Amino acid sequence: MRLPPGVSSSDFSDALKQFAEAVGKEWVFTSDADVDLYRDSYSPFWHESEEPIPCAAVAPNNVEEVQKVVRIANTYKIPLWTISTGKNLGYGGAAPLLSGSMVLDLKRMDRVIEVNDKNHYALVEPGVSYFDLYRYIQDKGLKVWIDPPDPGWGSLVGNALERGGGYTPMRDHFDAHCGMEVVLANGELVRTGMGALPNSKTWQQYKYGFGPYVDGIFSQSNFGVVTKMGFWLYPEPEAFLSGSVTVARHDDLFPLVEIFANLMNSGQVQATTTVVSPLTYSRDPQLAALRAKGPREDVERYAAEKNIPYWSVSLPFYGPAKVVAAQWEYAKEKFSAIPAARFQDGASYRFPLSADQLAKIVNPVPFGVPSLQTFSIGGPFSQGHMWFSPIIPMTGEAVLEAQSVFDQVHKDLASESGAPPGFPVWNFFARAFVIIYFFPIEHDVEKNRRNREIFKRLVKESAEHGWGEYRTHTAFMSDVANAYSFNNHSLLRLNETIKDALDPNGILSAGKNGIWPKEMRNTKA
Amino acid sequence: MRLPPGVSSSDFSDALKQFAEAVGKEWVFTSDADVDLYRDSYSPFWHESEEPIPCAAVAPNNVEEVQKVVRIANTYKIPLWTISTGKNLGYGGAAPLLSGSMVLDLKRMDRVIEVNDKNHYALVEPGVSYFDLYRYIQDKGLKVWIDPPDPGWGSLVGNALERGGGYTPMRDHFDAHCGMEVVLANGELVRTGMGALPNSKTWQQYKYGFGPYVDGIFSQSNFGVVTKMGFWLYPEPEAFLSGSVTVARHDDLFPLVEIFANLMNSGQVQATTTVVSPLTYSRDPQLAALRAKGPREDVERYAAEKNIPYWSVSLPFYGPAKVVAAQWEYAKEKFSAIPAARFQDGASYRFPLSADQLAKIVNPVPFGVPSLQTFSIGGPFSQGHMWFSPIIPMTGEAVLEAQSVFDQVHKDLASESGAPPGFPVWNFFARAFVIIYFFPIEHDVEKNRRNREIFKRLVKESAEHGWGEYRTHTAFMSDVANAYSFNNHSLLRLNETIKDALDPNGILSAGKNGIWPKEMRNTKA
Repeated sequence: MRLPPGVSSSDFSDALKQFAEAVGKEWVFTSDADVDLYRDSYSPFWHESEEPIPCAAVAPNNVEEVQKVVRIANTYKIPLWTISTGKNLGYGGAAPLLSGSMVLDLKRMDRVIEVNDKNHYALVEPGVSYFDLYRYIQDKGLKVWIDPPDPGWGSLVGNALERGGGYTPMRDHFDAHCGMEVVLANGELVRTGMGALPNSKTWQQYKYGFGPYVDGIFSQSNFGVVTKMGFWLYPEPEAFLSGSVTVARHDDLFPLVEIFANLMNSGQVQATTTVVSPLTYSRDPQLAALRAKGPREDVERYAAEKNIPYWSVSLPFYGPAKVVAAQWEYAKEKFSAIPAARFQDGASYRFPLSADQLAKIVNPVPFGVPSLQTFSIGGPFSQGHMWFSPIIPMTGEAVLEAQSVFDQVHKDLASESGAPPGFPVWNFFARAFVIIYFFPIEHDVEKNRRNREIFKRLVKESAEHGWGEYRTHTAFMSDVANAYSFNNHSLLRLNETIKDALDPNGILSAGKNGIWPKEMRNTKA
Repeated sequence: MRLPPGVSSSDFSDALKQFAEAVGKEWVFTSDADVDLYRDSYSPFWHESEEPIPCAAVAPNNVEEVQKVVRIANTYKIPLWTISTGKNLGYGGAAPLLSGSMVLDLKRMDRVIEVNDKNHYALVEPGVSYFDLYRYIQDKGLKVWIDPPDPGWGSLVGNALERGGGYTPMRDHFDAHCGMEVVLANGELVRTGMGALPNSKTWQQYKYGFGPYVDGIFSQSNFGVVTKMGFWLYPEPEAFLSGSVTVARHDDLFPLVEIFANLMNSGQVQATTTVVSPLTYSRDPQLAALRAKGPREDVERYAAEKNIPYWSVSLPFYGPAKVVAAQWEYAKEKFSAIPAARFQDGASYRFPLSADQLAKIVNPVPFGVPSLQTFSIGGPFSQGHMWFSPIIPMTGEAVLEAQSVFDQVHKDLASESGAPPGFPVWNFFARAFVIIYFFPIEHDVEKNRRNREIFKRLVKESAEHGWGEYRTHTAFMSDVANAYSFNNHSLLRLNETIKDALDPNGILSAGKNGIWPKEMRNTKA
């Protein structure tokens, strides 16, 4: 039997008995075979002793059982690591950060409590996946969309708490949530926002409630166990239209991004897309030679001859057919300020899609349909992946600066093809770009060690450029948290003060996002 | 000399000397004449002993001085009451909740630190008013709009922290903020979101940072003193267009609100407007007689003859001229599902407005121009006002239910004309309606007493209907907080736990939104 750190074998046996009484013995997992399922399939510590291994797992079925589990953990000071569906791939999966933590697995709590298609919201438990909610909505014929992230098997609650993103106008998943129910470390049940009003009629319609708006402190944190969460849904739109803009010169990036930011920030483009450099993606050897040698004018001339744009952005529009058409017309007018900007109409759909139409769409995620199509990524290149995800300003200057930093990373990485030489910047969030940079995981201890070092170096280097990661793999949470060091880490110290007040025994998700229980703070952080 | 509660005269004298050393003696106010300026001009306790009176005021000029003030207050346990510009009219103005508190007045911190018109944001101090920021932007000729609330002399920081609203697509002021700087009760300086990263390039562009997103706990709270705040600005739009929809029958309200909610929730309407009943507003005596007697068909017939709509909604559209035209066309198509719905084109503008155009607009607030025009309200009716502001669902059913509750209030109120008989519901926030109901303040002790009782009764009655207030006058903060009582007030207890951890001496804004320092909790709450 694996033991949690600092817990005696007899105490752990007692605790396991109590967990079994609380949730039923078939929902307490202790055999290696069962517990190993919670390890990180893409661990950067492949075949190394540093890989965090859970000691056991417990899967309650409802809120009362979660309360019991938390109270037992408090009694025996057993570190819990909460997961919803455990699909946080590229960021640690289901595995804890602290080896020996017991996984608190909420996948059995998979109830869709309500979907409202007049005020367009859902209330769900943490075990509800994007597939689950999509099926529920389809079965009832409701005219609302969900906003799935790339893989649809994850949890709405888990994804939003980790601040994941999707593709439709509801793409910022934490922002699209409204109202929470949380079990605190002491077992108390709290409802936030309007949920604190008994019989509230607007728990999923108005976010803030009265007094401090606390929801944010339960995201990317270990301050409580979220057991219900409301989400705003997007009313099924009439149409989708996309159009792409390409420009021919290196310096066209500056006005391209400036116009793009204006369209985004004024609400004319509300969905996720990318700015990319098809030229840096190109594998044309002559182009590569020209790029190495310069001057830039020759590169631009050659690329123009070969019809390879220097930069490209695709614009997605959702809404009434006549509105999206007008938005694309307006965007073309604006981008026409860039000499030689070229435009191409992209996909265009009316909703709902027929089964035939849907079957022909390779990746239906941007149309509110969950999928696992994303798992084509990385497949041929490496044994797994983790993401390096800094936020950079929405300016051409920042994009160029980031490209030069990541060109160096590409040269350094111990992998032939883990990360492409050019890369897109994404607008998963409203007013900034995010880079989702692919770090390969290999079945090779030495390569992984080297790549981990590069990852850590990159956290520091990004911070020096003024860029912070919005999310990271458990293996690097303390590194990233430590980079947010303004005034002698005053934000982290504030978080630690709240942690100690809400979870004095430190039983919840030790180390999550750099926040350690008091007793481990000096040794671990 | 007035004294703070529980502080000796000699201690307070010592503290005042230290405050004077910290901020300069001309910025510590102790004379009755000076300090009375911080009293609530619209106090519902007019000429009563319950009116909270500040003991003194201190006005630091910068962050370091705020830190010193807070540290001195901690030493002497002096209760502070923080205000930005003190213009929270209708909700308590500049006055503290706890009589004898010392006002911490941030009006001197009025620096516009940055306005960026490429990524469309501002970073400001608490003393910056909407007028200040507007002038700054106009002087520099920047192509960005601010979103003023009704009166423009208030603080952006203060208004957002109280969760105020405006009229343009950036109307939810707390939602439109990005990044904070906060002085904690212990004097520590914290920057939130990306601001925790030294030399961050995206403090005003990405909200959440890494780890717990703490900003919300500093809104409607007494957990810290916000000294800087970022705000997203709206890129100057090309055009504005409005159109109104009127319907003739009582029951048309249901589809009217349903279609409206769809347009709002899908982002086709992004700005503030109202659903009103011109019929209930009408003072036609024959109509009033018919309404009293019924049947409803006769009321509808008479109103139709007189051309008085039963319900009306005005739709504001901001954006490119061709887009707003398409949005209005689409809205008309949708509302045409209601038999006999009628449409009228409203105001239409291209921006920027000329000085001549601007001069002709009675209320320029919806066009990003701060104003004091709102002070026409209430003037002829009463000596002041306070607001009762519950959130109700965006459904016709809820609007009717609210009207019946408030009709009774209107009959009960000890005022001839303080509140109109019909009233609009507003969409200051994304997915729900808010009622901003006018409660008169009189120069009459008995009337005020009676109106306060009605206010308290209404808090309870609203809670029974499932509606909570989003904000309230200091006089009723504990009443409202107590209505949010789910699970034996577990959210309030969570807030108190955080309060005790961050402000153990309870020096910051005692009683704010129902949160009292530990020592006063049993007697005051």
